[in-house]
Amino acid sequence: MFEISPSIRVRRSPFFEATVAAGVKGFIPYNQMLMPVGYGDPEAEYWRLINDVAQWDVAVERQIELSGPDAGKLAQILTPRDLTKCVADQGKYIALCNHRGTIINDPILLKLDEDRFWLSIADSNVLFWARAITAERGLDVEAFEADVSPLAVQGPKANDVIAAIFGDWVRDLKFFWFKKVEIEGIPLMLARSGWSKQGGFELYLMDGTKGTALWDIVREAGQPFGIGPGNPNLCERVESGLLSWGSDTDDDTNPYEIGLGKYIDLDVADDVVGVSALRDVNANGAKRHQLGLVLDGDSPMKPHIVWYDIVVDGRKVGHMTNGVWSHRKKRNIGFALVSRDIASGDRVEVRKNGAVVNGTLCDLPFL
Amino acid sequence: MFEISPSIRVRRSPFFEATVAAGVKGFIPYNQMLMPVGYGDPEAEYWRLINDVAQWDVAVERQIELSGPDAGKLAQILTPRDLTKCVADQGKYIALCNHRGTIINDPILLKLDEDRFWLSIADSNVLFWARAITAERGLDVEAFEADVSPLAVQGPKANDVIAAIFGDWVRDLKFFWFKKVEIEGIPLMLARSGWSKQGGFELYLMDGTKGTALWDIVREAGQPFGIGPGNPNLCERVESGLLSWGSDTDDDTNPYEIGLGKYIDLDVADDVVGVSALRDVNANGAKRHQLGLVLDGDSPMKPHIVWYDIVVDGRKVGHMTNGVWSHRKKRNIGFALVSRDIASGDRVEVRKNGAVVNGTLCDLPFL
Repeated sequence: MFEISPSIRVRRSPFFEATVAAGVKGFIPYNQMLMPVGYGDPEAEYWRLINDVAQWDVAVERQIELSGPDAGKLAQILTPRDLTKCVADQGKYIALCNHRGTIINDPILLKLDEDRFWLSIADSNVLFWARAITAERGLDVEAFEADVSPLAVQGPKANDVIAAIFGDWVRDLKFFWFKKVEIEGIPLMLARSGWSKQGGFELYLMDGTKGTALWDIVREAGQPFGIGPGNPNLCERVESGLLSWGSDTDDDTNPYEIGLGKYIDLDVADDVVGVSALRDVNANGAKRHQLGLVLDGDSPMKPHIVWYDIVVDGRKVGHMTNGVWSHRKKRNIGFALVSRDIASGDRVEVRKNGAVVNGTLCDLPFL
Repeated sequence: MFEISPSIRVRRSPFFEATVAAGVKGFIPYNQMLMPVGYGDPEAEYWRLINDVAQWDVAVERQIELSGPDAGKLAQILTPRDLTKCVADQGKYIALCNHRGTIINDPILLKLDEDRFWLSIADSNVLFWARAITAERGLDVEAFEADVSPLAVQGPKANDVIAAIFGDWVRDLKFFWFKKVEIEGIPLMLARSGWSKQGGFELYLMDGTKGTALWDIVREAGQPFGIGPGNPNLCERVESGLLSWGSDTDDDTNPYEIGLGKYIDLDVADDVVGVSALRDVNANGAKRHQLGLVLDGDSPMKPHIVWYDIVVDGRKVGHMTNGVWSHRKKRNIGFALVSRDIASGDRVEVRKNGAVVNGTLCDLPFL
C-alpha cells in the first residue's frame, strides 16, 4: 500500500529496533504507536502460533495507570464489572462503557495494589476519559500513561519458553494473574494473558530502554521451541471468536450485543458509568447480536478494511465486521453483527463493493 | 520507511481516491484516518503554497458536532475562551483544556446555530471528552462525529480559485467566518480558514460520497492559477509559527506556555473546565515558554520525529519540539519549549541522538 511517513504522532515501541532486526514488513497505528503486523510470511506466522510459539510486540497495549487513594473507587466507576473480589496481582477483562452503555474500550485491568491499577487498553483514548470522570467526580486519583510495554509470548509452547527463563513456578500462574519479576536487571510484570486462544504470557516491560534486551532474552530462550516473531493474528483471533474493539464495534455497540454480557454485573452501584443504560438494555433485550459467518466458496479473500452490509430477503439486517481466510477451516469466515431476529443457521447475502457473496451464520467461536 | 497495512482502524478520506490519482506518496494516521503528507516533490509543494495555490485533503480534521438545547452551554464549558459574542456563521480558534489547564486540543469552533456547533479538531479524542463532560454535567446535548470533511485551498491565489467557483463575494468573507453553499449539488460550508499563513479557504464537504467530485471541481478551477496537490506544510507552518497540537505540546503544556494566552479569557464562568487551574498559572507565571530556534550550519536536516533536549551550561532547560529546513531562511529552524529564564537571543545546545548541535533562540514567527 503506502508509506507511513515518520512523524512525532506515531511513536515507536521499545521493541521497535528488535522488530526491525527480525524483519518486520508493515505496521498499523494503534494508540498513537506503531504496531508490527507482519514479518513476510503470514501463513508460517499463523502455524507457528498454532503449533509452537511466537513473540509479539504489543507495546501498543498502553497501560493507563490509576494511582491514589480513590483509584479503586474510580476503577469500579469506570466498569460495570464487579471488582470487589479482585485482589492484588490479579487481572480481569473488563468493559468500559460510556453513559449510554456503549462500549468504549475493553482493557485488562491489573490490580497492582489497593490504590494502584493498570488498564491495559485497546485502541481508544482511555486517558482523557478517566481524567474527565476523575475530575468531574472530585476523586483523588492521578491517571497517566505509564512507561510499560507488553511483549506477548503466545502458543502451546509458551509455557516451556517462559519456564526456561523464570522457572517452573510460572506453569502454575492462573489466567490473568501476574507477578512482579526481574530478569538480567529488567523489571517486569509477568502475566498469564494474551490475545489468542493458544495460551501464553504477556511480559509487561517496565523500563522502556530495555526493549531489545528483553526481546533477545525471549528469542534466545525460545530457540529450542521454534520461536519466531509474530503479531496479534487476525486469522486465529477470528477462528477463536476474540473481539477486536474498534474493528468489531461501532459507536452504538453495547456489551450484550457482542457476547460480553457475562462480564457485566448489573448490581454494581448506581454511580458506575453506563450501568443504568445497561440495565435498560438487559431488560428490553439488545437489538443486535454477534454471530459467526462462513462464506460460500473456497478461494481465500483479502481481509476486510470496511464493514460490509448483510442482507436477508432484500432487507439490510446488519454488518460483517471482519473477514479472513481460515487456514484450519479452509473457508472465508468472519463475524456478523446482526439484528436479533436473524439466527445461527440462517443464509445471508454479504454486499461487498457491489458484488454479492452468500454465506451461512453460525455460533462463535469457530474453533 | 514501512508500509501501513490496510486496516479498519485507519479510515480513508472521501478524497482518498482523488489523492491517489494525484500521486500521493505517503500518509500519517491522524484521528484514525489517513492524511496525505506528500506527492513526491516536497520543495515544489512548498513553493506552490508560497507563490501560487495548493489543494489539501484535510478530512482528518474531523468535525465533532454538538447539537441540542445545551450545545452552546457545553461549548463554553469546554473552552476558556469567551464565546458570548460569537454568532452564527462565525468561527473561532479555541483551546480545549482539561481540569489541570493542560491543552488537550485546539480546534476551530464553527457556530452553525444557537444550538449547533462543530469543533474542527486536531489529533485527539474530543468525542470521548465532550461526551464525558456532557453526561457528568447532565446537559442535553448530542455529541457525535459528523460526516464532514474539509478540503483546504491555500496560497496567495486561493482567492482567485474560490472566486472562480463561487463568485466574487468570497473575497469579502472575513477570517474564520463561513457560509453554507452548494456547487453542482454538493453541499458544503465555505470558510476563510486554513493551517497556513498564506491565506485561503476550507471547504467543509458535507457529503462523504462526493469527495472526488469536489476535488476535481477545485482542481479544474485552479488550473489557470497553477494549482496542485499539497498537504499541511511542515516548513511553512514552522516558519509562520503555527502550533501543531500533539507535536509541540506534551501532557503538561498549558496555553500560556505556547503563545495562546490571548485566546484565554479568565473571567469566563467558574464552571468552565480548566479555568481555575489557568487562573493559577496566570497568577504565578507559566514555567515554560515557546520560542523559535535557529540551528548553526547550512545543510538541510531531516524533520524531527522525537523531541530533542535543549541544554544550557550543562543544564537541561527544555525541548526542541520540531525542526525543519527553511527554504526561505536557508537554515534549520524549529520551536523550543524552554524554561522561562531562557530568552530570545540565548545560545543553546540541542542534543540529537548523542550529537550536539548549537543554535540561537529567537522570537516567533520566523517569517
